[in-house]
This record gives sequence, structure tokens and C-alpha cells, in this order.
Amino acid sequence: MAEVMEALPEVVVVRNKQVLFKDYVNGYPKESDMVVTSNATIRLELPKNDGGLILSKNLYLSCDPYMRGRMKETFTGSYVPSFTPGSPLSGYGVAKVLDSTHPDFKKGDLISGPFTNWEEYSLITNAESLIKIQHTDVPLSYYTGIFGMPGMTAYVGFYEICSPKKGDIVFVSAASGAVGQLVGQFAKLHGCYVVGSAGSNEKVDLLKNKFGFDEAFNYKEEPDLNAALKRYCPDGIDIYFENVGGKMLDAVLLNMRVGGRIAVCGMISQYNIDQHEGIHNLVFLILKSIKMKGFLAPDYYHLYPKFLETVLPLIHEGKIKYVEDMVEGLENAPSALVGLFSGKNVGKQVVVVARQ
Amino acid sequence: MAEVMEALPEVVVVRNKQVLFKDYVNGYPKESDMVVTSNATIRLELPKNDGGLILSKNLYLSCDPYMRGRMKETFTGSYVPSFTPGSPLSGYGVAKVLDSTHPDFKKGDLISGPFTNWEEYSLITNAESLIKIQHTDVPLSYYTGIFGMPGMTAYVGFYEICSPKKGDIVFVSAASGAVGQLVGQFAKLHGCYVVGSAGSNEKVDLLKNKFGFDEAFNYKEEPDLNAALKRYCPDGIDIYFENVGGKMLDAVLLNMRVGGRIAVCGMISQYNIDQHEGIHNLVFLILKSIKMKGFLAPDYYHLYPKFLETVLPLIHEGKIKYVEDMVEGLENAPSALVGLFSGKNVGKQVVVVARQ
Repeated sequence: MAEVMEALPEVVVVRNKQVLFKDYVNGYPKESDMVVTSNATIRLELPKNDGGLILSKNLYLSCDPYMRGRMKETFTGSYVPSFTPGSPLSGYGVAKVLDSTHPDFKKGDLISGPFTNWEEYSLITNAESLIKIQHTDVPLSYYTGIFGMPGMTAYVGFYEICSPKKGDIVFVSAASGAVGQLVGQFAKLHGCYVVGSAGSNEKVDLLKNKFGFDEAFNYKEEPDLNAALKRYCPDGIDIYFENVGGKMLDAVLLNMRVGGRIAVCGMISQYNIDQHEGIHNLVFLILKSIKMKGFLAPDYYHLYPKFLETVLPLIHEGKIKYVEDMVEGLENAPSALVGLFSGKNVGKQVVVVARQ
Repeated sequence: MAEVMEALPEVVVVRNKQVLFKDYVNGYPKESDMVVTSNATIRLELPKNDGGLILSKNLYLSCDPYMRGRMKETFTGSYVPSFTPGSPLSGYGVAKVLDSTHPDFKKGDLISGPFTNWEEYSLITNAESLIKIQHTDVPLSYYTGIFGMPGMTAYVGFYEICSPKKGDIVFVSAASGAVGQLVGQFAKLHGCYVVGSAGSNEKVDLLKNKFGFDEAFNYKEEPDLNAALKRYCPDGIDIYFENVGGKMLDAVLLNMRVGGRIAVCGMISQYNIDQHEGIHNLVFLILKSIKMKGFLAPDYYHLYPKFLETVLPLIHEGKIKYVEDMVEGLENAPSALVGLFSGKNVGKQVVVVARQ
């Protein structure tokens, strides 16, 4: 893949294709908010006297809804920094170490981290949040999904936030997405009754026939979400795994059971509008003694080893399935990221930069 | 007080003044939604062969915001029944047993219960939820307030729902009310920094000078609640004790700290409007990992003995103060109840039917 641009005796310099962030975004992000360029070059060898650096070849990039927040200049209440106009986007990714002067990483290591730049090669100056991939008997791209932040989000959100019990009625929105598909499968394995919503009949089919949801519906075909929920969850909802916000949340609040739990994972329907839609039914938090809890998976990374121990065998035994939507090449990364917000992706959206 | 209407040899029949509920209410309740009548009479002695009955003389009646829900025909998600048009209102109250054929209660007992009718005398057919008052070295009216549902609400909401830590920044809305004044004092005793909002300068003065709040403000004089909160809680809010809902909740969400807790006790600003105001800032539940939990004190009554053990000495030692707003006579009960929704009351609103 790497095209040799110049060959000096000592070092190899190659093209480093990048996806640059153009400027802060209002409303829905567009492909034209990013630019793919091959202007940059990079040396594929580290100077030996610079300690603590890692040179990586990036393999898989993750497209996640939270990245919309990073496109704002003032991301109020931010837990990650905004993107810098003129610099590459960054996010969760999987990479291979090409060279390292960092004592904990060596050439050939496979790594995963939350700040992988959207480019072919990266010089990593801060290894603090990098994870060395130990299990390579699963697709490497899974480390952007089921074994990455979305997987931990589903695991923590369901088991730690929702306090699930056998027989609970669980409703998941954006249910075929990177997180939702796992929540539904965890809930089924836990003995719950599981209903999901998604934005196309193809996704509904996936929920029922691939992920084993008991019921699923296409919210775009439901003019009255409250009526739809009453039809699919006639006995009410014990656990709501919230990925979308807005009208769906309002309808769910009308259908929660006493003592219900709402894990607030995301509100993708709201990320591209300046004034978020008003939620009118919060009084049901009181009437039904409901707990609503927002959370961020990174706060629970101490559970990562336990999580891997639980989920790796489930994947190997085929008890959990994971669907990815792969696009090839950095050229297609902007449309993949933008597509998240119209629900274009079916399953976890991944960009393949290189396969090894 | 009791006016003898007719005197047969065997029984005494007296006037029984009542406050009757006229019909279901839309919008703000008015005094004219209730009618005070002296038409009814009652025999002040129970037939000896009817087992399990209690005849009570009602002493103190409690006016509580949740009663607004009972004025609706369809109180969706109700945990207590609607009032019956043509029958007396009912609510928390303190009464004295005049006669009893119930094995657990005898003449002279002081009782407290959630379904005390708004009338001078009541025939109680279901003693299930009655509490026999044991400690009479505090004002009896306190059993509608600090030693009743509002006290338990403050105690449970603060200690069980908010997981308070010393040094936490606590914000309480409707802070001089039956519940809020206690939450603030519990929080101060726990070593928290406490800020309250209320609807008049008189109440603000009470918060700062009687209840020992660190800061307090009159929300009616603040055109920008977000700015007010930033001024009074410049470091943000760890715990919000929610009594009002609406715009205050939206402003608080902008000011919560990471890991914050919101005890959702009431939303009095919303009870008289058909379509509740929209809450726009729930995305902060995610960004700041906030827990929001609705609760109903009756679900925690197993903690009542522990609560009494904790709070009785605090009252005796003067470490907790409790302010009541007493009106005299059933004639004034409708205006007292209606006044809750315009914030007319200063402190816990009680109606005195009889002092003993």
C-alpha cells in the first residue's frame, strides 16, 4: 500500500493519506466537512534517541456517534477534546506497531486506543490509553466494536447500570447498532424478553433472525411510538437501553414499569440539532420510581479483563454474533462517519485502512 | 367544637363538617373545586358488634403537592386513587381515636395515616396503613410533616437516593417547603455546601437565617436560572434535590458535576399544565455520568424506625428546625391546598381541624 516517495540512504519516507477535519460543524455533518489528502509524508523509522514514541500503521478505524460532539467548537461538558480544524480526525482504532522506542511496546505488537488518527501511519507520543491486543483469534476489527468501547458500553450499561433480572422486559433503541445488538444478546442470554427498534426493515430482520430478539419494529413506520411500544411491550418495560433520545424516550417513559431502569448510553437523534427536543414525560420517573443513569464506558475499564473473560468464549461458541459494516479505504471514511447519523450503516461501522 | 344535633338516649349524633371534592380538575385547582359543608352528621359511638372499626376525631390535615394528581380522572401511572367527586378529599393526617372495635387501637390513641378524610370525624374501615403515634413530646402536627411523609421523603431522598458525601455541593429547589427545608438541614449536618431556591424573599431569608443554608435565591427574580446557578454554585452541583421540574431542571442539568445525583422527588411546576414543559438538556446525563432517580417515600417505610431514631433527637436538641404554615379550620382547607401551587405557604402547609 505504501508508495515510496523518496529514498534517502537512512530512512524510508512514504505517503501518509489522512482525513482532515475542515472546520466546526453546525447541524448534520457532511462529507465536505472533512477532506481526504495525500499531501503528508512520514518516515517509517523512529530516531533511536527519542524515547517513548510509537510508530503505528493504522488498520481499522471506528465510526462512533459520540464523535459528533468533537465536531463542535464548544463541546460543553466534554469528556474528550474537540477535533482541531486542519488536523486529522481521531477515534477508536486498531493499529500495528512498526517501530517503537517505548519500553512497553515493540515492533509487531497489535494495539488499540481511543485516539487513533484517521491516517495511514501515526506517530504516537502518548501511549497512556493504548491497549495491547492479546487475543488474535478473533477478527482484529472487533477491537473497534465488540471488544472495544461499544462492547464495554453494552456490557457495563446492561450489567452494571440496568441491574437485570431474569424475566425482565428489555427494550433497546438503535438496536442493530454497534452497542444495541450486543445489549439485546446479553439480555437474551440473561433470560430477559427483548424488544428492539431500528430504522429499516432490513435491520428489523437482523434483530429477529440473527440476534434473536423476541420482537423488533421499524420506528420509521410507526406514526405513534407510544402505541407501538404498547403493542410490542403490552406489559410495560423494565429496562430501557437508551441510544436515541427525543420522541422515543418520551414514548418509553409512558411505558416503563415500576422500579424500571434506563441506561442512558446515547441520544443520536439529538446530536445534530442545536436545541435538543424537549422531553415531556419525566414525571414518570417519580410515579414509577425509575432510575435513569448516564454513563461512559471508559469509567469502567477496570472491568475490561472480566468482560473479555465473559465475552470471548461466547463469541467462540457462537452464542453471540457481531455484525460489522465495513468500508474500505480512508477515501470512504467521511461518508461512513456521516452515514451514522442517517442510520445508513447496518451494524458496527468500521473503516478498513489496511488489513495488516 | 362538636355541636349536638340530636340526642337520643343511646347515641350522640353530631355535625360532621366536610370538605367535598366537586369534580375532576383541569389546569390550576381553585377553591371552588371543593365545597365545605356541614350537612353530614355522625354518631360518636360505634355499634359494639361491628368488629375492626375505628371512629376518629381528625386533628391535623396535610396539604401536599401530590394531591393534585388525585384531582385528575385518569391519573396515569397513579400510585394512589383519584378523589371521588361528591366525597371528602383525603390525605395524610393526624387523628385521635374516639371509639374502636379494632383490636390494635383503643380510645385515646393518637394515629396518623395517608387516607385521613377531610372532615371532623371519620369512620375508619381499613386500619392497614395507620401508624400509632408513640412520641408525643413533639407537636402532633409534625406527624403530617417532619415525622410523616415529607420527613421520610427528605430522609430517603437525601440519604438513600443521593449517596451524599461530606463536601458535596447540594442544590435544593422549593427549598423552604415541607421537604426542602429538611433536605437542606440534613445536608448541612452531613457536611455539605447547601444552596436553595424559593419563590419569595421571605423564604430566602428563612433558608439562610433559620435553616442555615449557605446560599439561597429567589428564582422569581432570576431571569436566567443557568446564570443564577453559576453564580451560587460556581463549582457546579453534586446533588440536586428536585422538587419543581421544568426550567429549573433544565438549568440544573447544565450545572451538574461529573458523577452527580438527582433525586426526583416532585415537579410541582408541572402539575397544573396538561403538556409538561420539555426538558432539553438530558444529554448531560451522559456527558457527566449523572444518576437521576425518582422515588416514593412509602416504598421506604421499613426505614421509619431508624428515621425516627435519627431525627427525634435532632429536633429535641434544636439541631433541626421545622417551619409549618398552619391554617385554622376546615373552612380554610381549600385555599390552603390551592395555595401550594402558587407557593403561598411558607413551610409545611397544615390545616388544623381541632387541637385535641
